[in-house]
Amino acid sequence: MPAVQTPTLRDVADAAGVHPATASRALNPGTRGLVNADTARRVMKVAETLGYRPNPIARGLKTAKSGTIGLVLPDLTNPMFPPIVRGIEAILEAAGYSGLIVNTDNDPHRERVHIETLRSRQVEGFIIATARLEHPLLEQLQREGVQMVMVNRRPEGLDLPSITPDDAVGVELSVRHLAELGHRRIVHLAGPDNTSTGVARARAFRNAVRDLGLEHDPALVASCSHWSEEAGAEALRGMLDAGTDFTAVVAGNDLIALGCYDVFAERGLQCPGDVSVVGFNDMPFLDKLRPPLTTVSVPHQQIGAEAARLLLEAIADPSRPARSVLLPLTLKVRGSTAPPAA
Amino acid sequence: MPAVQTPTLRDVADAAGVHPATASRALNPGTRGLVNADTARRVMKVAETLGYRPNPIARGLKTAKSGTIGLVLPDLTNPMFPPIVRGIEAILEAAGYSGLIVNTDNDPHRERVHIETLRSRQVEGFIIATARLEHPLLEQLQREGVQMVMVNRRPEGLDLPSITPDDAVGVELSVRHLAELGHRRIVHLAGPDNTSTGVARARAFRNAVRDLGLEHDPALVASCSHWSEEAGAEALRGMLDAGTDFTAVVAGNDLIALGCYDVFAERGLQCPGDVSVVGFNDMPFLDKLRPPLTTVSVPHQQIGAEAARLLLEAIADPSRPARSVLLPLTLKVRGSTAPPAA
Repeated sequence: MPAVQTPTLRDVADAAGVHPATASRALNPGTRGLVNADTARRVMKVAETLGYRPNPIARGLKTAKSGTIGLVLPDLTNPMFPPIVRGIEAILEAAGYSGLIVNTDNDPHRERVHIETLRSRQVEGFIIATARLEHPLLEQLQREGVQMVMVNRRPEGLDLPSITPDDAVGVELSVRHLAELGHRRIVHLAGPDNTSTGVARARAFRNAVRDLGLEHDPALVASCSHWSEEAGAEALRGMLDAGTDFTAVVAGNDLIALGCYDVFAERGLQCPGDVSVVGFNDMPFLDKLRPPLTTVSVPHQQIGAEAARLLLEAIADPSRPARSVLLPLTLKVRGSTAPPAA
Repeated sequence: MPAVQTPTLRDVADAAGVHPATASRALNPGTRGLVNADTARRVMKVAETLGYRPNPIARGLKTAKSGTIGLVLPDLTNPMFPPIVRGIEAILEAAGYSGLIVNTDNDPHRERVHIETLRSRQVEGFIIATARLEHPLLEQLQREGVQMVMVNRRPEGLDLPSITPDDAVGVELSVRHLAELGHRRIVHLAGPDNTSTGVARARAFRNAVRDLGLEHDPALVASCSHWSEEAGAEALRGMLDAGTDFTAVVAGNDLIALGCYDVFAERGLQCPGDVSVVGFNDMPFLDKLRPPLTTVSVPHQQIGAEAARLLLEAIADPSRPARSVLLPLTLKVRGSTAPPAA
């Protein structure tokens, strides 16, 4: 058998009729924009025909640019994240970058391993959606000069760029809508109290209840152990078993609201006849639920796109100070909210 | 300012009281299993305390093992994929591997760029869920000796290991259920005819209709342009506008079935009173729809786990012949199917 001859960068450059430095730039997503578009296309086509593959080790040594970004997500099964990813990728792709996604399942050990893997694969920066309130890993990464943007959540006490929905406004829209329907005793099933979002929304709930002159009974607020259907159902069952009196629920997110639907079915409660429910996120398919869920609509794709823009800016100019962007929200009123029974 | 001293592998080994070769093995997910578990934990703890990070370039040169696998998904917003990812990651993690996920949005160019990025980041193999019927990229990767397992879909004419649901059985269960309810004219809104799954399910539909002695009118089968709600709605509108007579729909997947729900609302049709619908996949939250969707239940997490096992086996022993695994399916009967009106 003849020995297989691996094509070199010079072979590609010769076949494309360009200088090897030009071929190198054209083949690297991070520098492709510096080359005339037609030339870049020709070089890429030649490289593909010849079966050329860049030597990542040599490239890593020379440029320290990988053209890749790490996306760290806490839970891919939460339907909120795919639209965020789509928004991120639209911007990255236009800039010649690729996103490598890892899923941490909210496990700090897995998060650390995944982030270390991505760093050893030389990503140029991170978009991270896993901020717990206490987050020593993020502090460490920041100390080590890693470029990061937080998306959807914001750790307290860390000066990192972030793109988050305006949680306070979202919660206030929900409480106001229920108050206008005539509800006075409203439950909040808050997200986990070790997450920045859970804490921020619970604080916004208490403020809105006070501002609107509704009953602020501590028994009306419970924290769920996770952002999940199961945890939402468990919290609502606890509330009902304790005999707490209420006519409406503001759920920390849509999944928690869906957990309420399960409990209504178990306990023979009608929604919205007996209890109204509002979610948060407007994840897909809520309009087809029974009843369709009233919820706070969050522009997830825009959140992702803004996060990618912030990160690319930070990579281009690391000296730029961190910015935090709050995106405005709206309420989508559907069939799960109605005036209280009597 | 004092110069920052980067800790070396020897520093870690000394601090942990082990030989540098042992420290190296303990710090590499691909070789960690070769080291006593307590020793590995001690080395990792010391490395973390000292802030040691392995030099990926040196490691790449020495071992060609990255401890990473690339997961190539066509559409993260399809709720079918997150449980597959979860199944894959459970197995990878137990074996000391990390998964890097890329999302191709079904775009062949983006798929090629992403796969090339992952190869240049030295992944040891791929789990790929994007098989179109014509897939020159997969042929090329196979020629180049890249280790891959196909998940959920199976390209024709390529001898690659794959884990797929038993589509023929799933479709037959659906058609038989509708026939037993008394339906005779059943529509199939097939998946895209350039996807292996779309073609396989349409073929299974035609066979089931013939085997069960139902009407096999070519006007009763239409292909959707995508696996999406919008494409499903468009196909059903075309069917209704053409005046086709039918009492039930077998949708290519759940998203196509949800598109039918939209058209029922537009046209004032009752489901299941006027038209019954069956989906495919049993994606999350279908039990909370109006009406809850009858669908074929696919063990996605198990599919992911089996795919990861096959890939790890192939990496450990590349000479092993490719295997294809079909996983059995069941029908979940819910509220979207009922006997025809008259």
